[in-house]
Amino acid sequence: MTSNITALQWLEAAKHRRSVYGLASTSKISKEEIQKILEETLSFAPSSYNTQPTRLTLITGEKQREFWNAIQAVAEPILRDFGESVWAQMGPRFEAFKGAHGSVLFWESEDSIKMSQQFHPAAAHMFNEFSDHTNGMHQILVWTALEIAGLGANLQHMQALPGVEDAIKKFCDVPNDWKLKAHLNFGDEAQEHPPVPQKLEYSKTLQVL
Amino acid sequence: MTSNITALQWLEAAKHRRSVYGLASTSKISKEEIQKILEETLSFAPSSYNTQPTRLTLITGEKQREFWNAIQAVAEPILRDFGESVWAQMGPRFEAFKGAHGSVLFWESEDSIKMSQQFHPAAAHMFNEFSDHTNGMHQILVWTALEIAGLGANLQHMQALPGVEDAIKKFCDVPNDWKLKAHLNFGDEAQEHPPVPQKLEYSKTLQVL
Repeated sequence: MTSNITALQWLEAAKHRRSVYGLASTSKISKEEIQKILEETLSFAPSSYNTQPTRLTLITGEKQREFWNAIQAVAEPILRDFGESVWAQMGPRFEAFKGAHGSVLFWESEDSIKMSQQFHPAAAHMFNEFSDHTNGMHQILVWTALEIAGLGANLQHMQALPGVEDAIKKFCDVPNDWKLKAHLNFGDEAQEHPPVPQKLEYSKTLQVL
Repeated sequence: MTSNITALQWLEAAKHRRSVYGLASTSKISKEEIQKILEETLSFAPSSYNTQPTRLTLITGEKQREFWNAIQAVAEPILRDFGESVWAQMGPRFEAFKGAHGSVLFWESEDSIKMSQQFHPAAAHMFNEFSDHTNGMHQILVWTALEIAGLGANLQHMQALPGVEDAIKKFCDVPNDWKLKAHLNFGDEAQEHPPVPQKLEYSKTLQVL
């Protein structure tokens, strides 16, 4: 048993996490405290066969603006091609992302996956999926911890647009086998904390035998 | 801000979760309390565009043994074909799984993903990966909450073997579009709580810009 927290209290704290788009360039916790949250997550988050394919990048301060400028240089022409109304909607969102305090990037190491496939050939066909599962686990642990610490955050996947991932990899100068999975923007909350969005009824999502 | 839990206390509680293979057929919390943990998780766990592709199944009590018998009927011949030494190792593990108190199955609804792809065509190529991320989030939230509640649990992926997923779908009588992602066995702990396995150095997994 752990300390004095019950399972429902732990989930109640987890429920505090939300997609917050109104973010300030400030952070009520220090870079060292944010880094500590990432290190703690890496110190215990599980992965199949403990293969640990997840990698993290922390970006803060002035680099956040440079980082989003690098993304925008590739993304803006594509979004304008979709239609000027798309850019009219996304442009202000880019400004908001740039104005946040920082980013956490969630990667997978493809070399790590290849190695796992060699060590565990019977499960080789499963490791890409396993990697996405553990990546999601890292995402929710970091995202929740940052929001419990008083920050707001939102999860982006700009790599859905062609060329953006290459621009991000170049900006971060990460190993070539790292593949971007998700990108969490964070900062002090500059809006009211939003409610939980509507969910499906349990009768549609939960089966009890 | 939430209650009185700090981010590091929340992560410390999450760190209690481990892969526990020694499980008893009993549970110190009731079926209703377990179901409540699943419902709470479903009530707030995020998914891209709030598309909610995750589905859960809860199996407890006598059904746990029947369930693992259904898996074994398909898996045992395959594992014996790998070599009798494989079965000599896995046979006792199957007995341990059967002897646990229950299972939580984590599925994705493929119909849900297809619908998301139609609603959000620009991100259509991302939804399978997004689904695996949110599935992993549900896995870690449920697994952690059960362990904080005092149970032990281990995560299996027997669907890696051909035919097993079909046997599980038949046993549970779930909609045909549900695809199995992970399977958590749980019960009262019948072994010492294991330590966190060795992790890579942060210098290999964490980049700070």
